[in-house]
Amino acid sequence: MNEMSLSTTPPGLSNYLHEIEAALSAAVQFDADCPDRLREAMQYSLLAPGKRLRPQLVLMACELCDGDTQAAMPAAVAVEMIHAYSLVHDDLPAMDDDDLRRGRPTCHKQFDEATATLVGDALQARAFEILARDVQPPECAARCCCELGRAVGATMLVGGQAADLASEFQQCSLAELEAIHRRKTGALFRVSLRLGAMIADASDGQLAALDDYGDNLGLAFQVIDDLLDVSGSEDHMGKRLGKDAHKGKNTYPAILGIESSQALAEKLIENASVSLGIFGDRAGPLRELALFVRQRNT
Amino acid sequence: MNEMSLSTTPPGLSNYLHEIEAALSAAVQFDADCPDRLREAMQYSLLAPGKRLRPQLVLMACELCDGDTQAAMPAAVAVEMIHAYSLVHDDLPAMDDDDLRRGRPTCHKQFDEATATLVGDALQARAFEILARDVQPPECAARCCCELGRAVGATMLVGGQAADLASEFQQCSLAELEAIHRRKTGALFRVSLRLGAMIADASDGQLAALDDYGDNLGLAFQVIDDLLDVSGSEDHMGKRLGKDAHKGKNTYPAILGIESSQALAEKLIENASVSLGIFGDRAGPLRELALFVRQRNT
Repeated sequence: MNEMSLSTTPPGLSNYLHEIEAALSAAVQFDADCPDRLREAMQYSLLAPGKRLRPQLVLMACELCDGDTQAAMPAAVAVEMIHAYSLVHDDLPAMDDDDLRRGRPTCHKQFDEATATLVGDALQARAFEILARDVQPPECAARCCCELGRAVGATMLVGGQAADLASEFQQCSLAELEAIHRRKTGALFRVSLRLGAMIADASDGQLAALDDYGDNLGLAFQVIDDLLDVSGSEDHMGKRLGKDAHKGKNTYPAILGIESSQALAEKLIENASVSLGIFGDRAGPLRELALFVRQRNT
Repeated sequence: MNEMSLSTTPPGLSNYLHEIEAALSAAVQFDADCPDRLREAMQYSLLAPGKRLRPQLVLMACELCDGDTQAAMPAAVAVEMIHAYSLVHDDLPAMDDDDLRRGRPTCHKQFDEATATLVGDALQARAFEILARDVQPPECAARCCCELGRAVGATMLVGGQAADLASEFQQCSLAELEAIHRRKTGALFRVSLRLGAMIADASDGQLAALDDYGDNLGLAFQVIDDLLDVSGSEDHMGKRLGKDAHKGKNTYPAILGIESSQALAEKLIENASVSLGIFGDRAGPLRELALFVRQRNT
């Protein structure tokens, strides 16, 4: 384990990191029918250093519901592929126009816009291919594909990004901002937990508790991300800061002020933890993960 | 039935057209969580007038293998959604930079580039959602999602587009050009037939025959498309012509000349028809469809 993973990941979470990295790397090996430049750009984007929060949510939810985490690895890979594709497309000049991501040039800066567009398209396709092929039994694979498709589609992940772009330079209410982020960030957190739980054959009560946790964690993550854009350091974040205001983005600090945003983040993290009540002490790792998300803001 | 569908579709094929249109329209209705502009742009792109060749391949393959075509309709919708998304992304300025498609402004001209990027992303997600949710039994749905994911991913549809872009202004051999189009056009033809046949619980022999047919038809389609870019009329095609040469695209007429390209198209159509030998006379509609593809070039 290298220093970076020690310093950025709480001890309970790092158990899975090496396996996740190995699985991600294996998932973007292709035969000669994949053009070299496309393969390189897919690997560059998917294997960039990252916290792998979403894959960890999959595996931790699976374990919490007494499932086999190995069986959930294809879902862990799939959600990280979706996350990586959404970053690559969001960074495009016509979208958020970012040139730095995870401390490195964004995909379209390192390669080109056409390649970045295709990288996102191919990562999305690969996510569904792996989920459909490797989750067992096939009934569960079909259910996972359906849930993932919905969570990343026009009413959720993509819809949230469209609403976010439409709201630039327009005054949002707190409720409108929350609605954007429930879709743009929360939906993928939530479905990550659901896939892991479904593979563990979780009960409806367990799924409902994880949904609550995911909703609260997703919003907390976004509030903290907005706070970091105001007060973080670029070295730490690996991306340009202060861009939200420049681009006319609605943010929690802009609407609520910094102190109230910090209080909201605390409250959401607490709510996330409370949501897991039915699991008792066994939910420790997911509670730790919520605290880890909060600590990014210190 | 309107004049357009009568004049552009052979009689045997039009049986399914109304049902396909209705299913496509139903598939892009969303609740209020989908931003209006995104919904409109998805409908604009998916419901533009088109021949619906790929959905018809799904349904005809299903019928030929004694399946229930109603059961294959979700797959028919899914492949047309993939086709529509790939057109929207291919038309983007950073890709093929086209401003006219099916006789109307391309999605990014009618809306904007960010919206067009998101339309493609959301159509792809929706294709997998519908396939996973509506194909029965779920084992078959999972298999369909896996095959579709592979056919539209980094080694096939997206890989072919990447290879096509990389080959601009470079001299391709005939074999290289064929390899591009087997992926870029052929893979979606082939998987359309496979999904329909799989939903009908086809035998391996039936699947292999349909694979051969799809490979030949897909290449024939591309050869004829290249010929039309040289010799067609813009009114008929609904898109700008003569752009291939301008953009340094490798085409069959450029490599083989017009006459040899026409002969190749004839040969491929004939091969497609021969591939269906095991089905006997019952393959009539698929043979008609191949002739219809050829006749576009008259």
